[in-house]
Amino acid sequence: MRKVVLLSGGMDSLVCLAEAHAAGGEIYALHLDYGQKTSVRETAAFGAICDHYGLDAGHRKIVSMAFLRQIGGSSLTDDAMAVNQAGLKPGIPSSYVPFRNSIILSLAVSWAETLDAKEVYVGANFEDSPGYPDCRPEYYEAMNRVVALGTRDGDIRLLTPVLRLHKKDVVARGRALGVPFEKSWSCYVANDRACGKCDSCLLRLKGFQENGEVDPLPQHDQGV
Amino acid sequence: MRKVVLLSGGMDSLVCLAEAHAAGGEIYALHLDYGQKTSVRETAAFGAICDHYGLDAGHRKIVSMAFLRQIGGSSLTDDAMAVNQAGLKPGIPSSYVPFRNSIILSLAVSWAETLDAKEVYVGANFEDSPGYPDCRPEYYEAMNRVVALGTRDGDIRLLTPVLRLHKKDVVARGRALGVPFEKSWSCYVANDRACGKCDSCLLRLKGFQENGEVDPLPQHDQGV
Repeated sequence: MRKVVLLSGGMDSLVCLAEAHAAGGEIYALHLDYGQKTSVRETAAFGAICDHYGLDAGHRKIVSMAFLRQIGGSSLTDDAMAVNQAGLKPGIPSSYVPFRNSIILSLAVSWAETLDAKEVYVGANFEDSPGYPDCRPEYYEAMNRVVALGTRDGDIRLLTPVLRLHKKDVVARGRALGVPFEKSWSCYVANDRACGKCDSCLLRLKGFQENGEVDPLPQHDQGV
Repeated sequence: MRKVVLLSGGMDSLVCLAEAHAAGGEIYALHLDYGQKTSVRETAAFGAICDHYGLDAGHRKIVSMAFLRQIGGSSLTDDAMAVNQAGLKPGIPSSYVPFRNSIILSLAVSWAETLDAKEVYVGANFEDSPGYPDCRPEYYEAMNRVVALGTRDGDIRLLTPVLRLHKKDVVARGRALGVPFEKSWSCYVANDRACGKCDSCLLRLKGFQENGEVDPLPQHDQGV
């Protein structure tokens, strides 16, 4: 069975790819490029992870999301807005792109139907995104209903294997599956060494710390 | 209240815009450009209709859907596939873009949330698209649930005023609302005079005929 995996290059989507790989079948990896500050670094992570899992050019695709800039309203796509670096605050982060996940999921399902793939793996994580309405489990349940009704054969399913996991458990699951965490990238701010301060870095570091481990990625405060 | 209207330039979306206009509030028109054969003609229709309803540059937006070509799988976006001209056949037309409506609706809702608009008018029509799974009423009900769950305030609604209307009634409703049908464009094939043979032309012509009217658009068989 063919399956599409949304692969941002971060650790959640990496663990999703590993789950899809462990479950067997033919994997097609989809990366969405927002043209944001860390775009080149994330695309490199995507490529390195695809290489690791033996996905050739026919099994990986990068789609430019540049058209989102025409919609606007987010610090991830609007250079005039600074990425929120104030820590893990409650509420909607400034990096929120309205309804972004629905656009992403729709694209992934569209590709899946083109490929005759039956599963779409999505690395959404609730702990990662407490302020994002479209990262809640009930959102994915509703989206699966739309996928069932809106596709030709109605037999494509969205799978969210890390949705309810704490970052600690994402790291532990990744270790069990032997994922190459050193090839992933999570930082929203830097491209060389992880900043260690943005929301995404803080959650990632916490995940490793709670497993008694050290993130294998070079960190900013480790010096050059 | 602000409202977004998806305006392809065809008669269904034109009548939707007229419904939104009649209901009052501030209208923002969104046109999606697929770069298909009739793209320039449809964009011209969009502009003419916006002018007619007094929508200035700040109240209209054209978003390029060129990224859909990266996904593939449809005659509307893939020049190598011919548009189905064999009449109103049952089943899925060759112009089907997998899960396209979900991509379109997600973009429109994203813009609506950015604008703080509360309604998104969609000119989907079931008679127009009997073979499209994502034109069924139950699909829109499911999508509205996703919109409620996936947006910040959960108070944006998709409205589909012509979904269950036959083309005859779309024409009649448009006449009652005084819409400029001569400024719309429906043909999938031609850019100067409507071909009168593609699925979209046949449905449109039928709608006028059943009202005892003649389509105000120049037709191919009327000569030059």
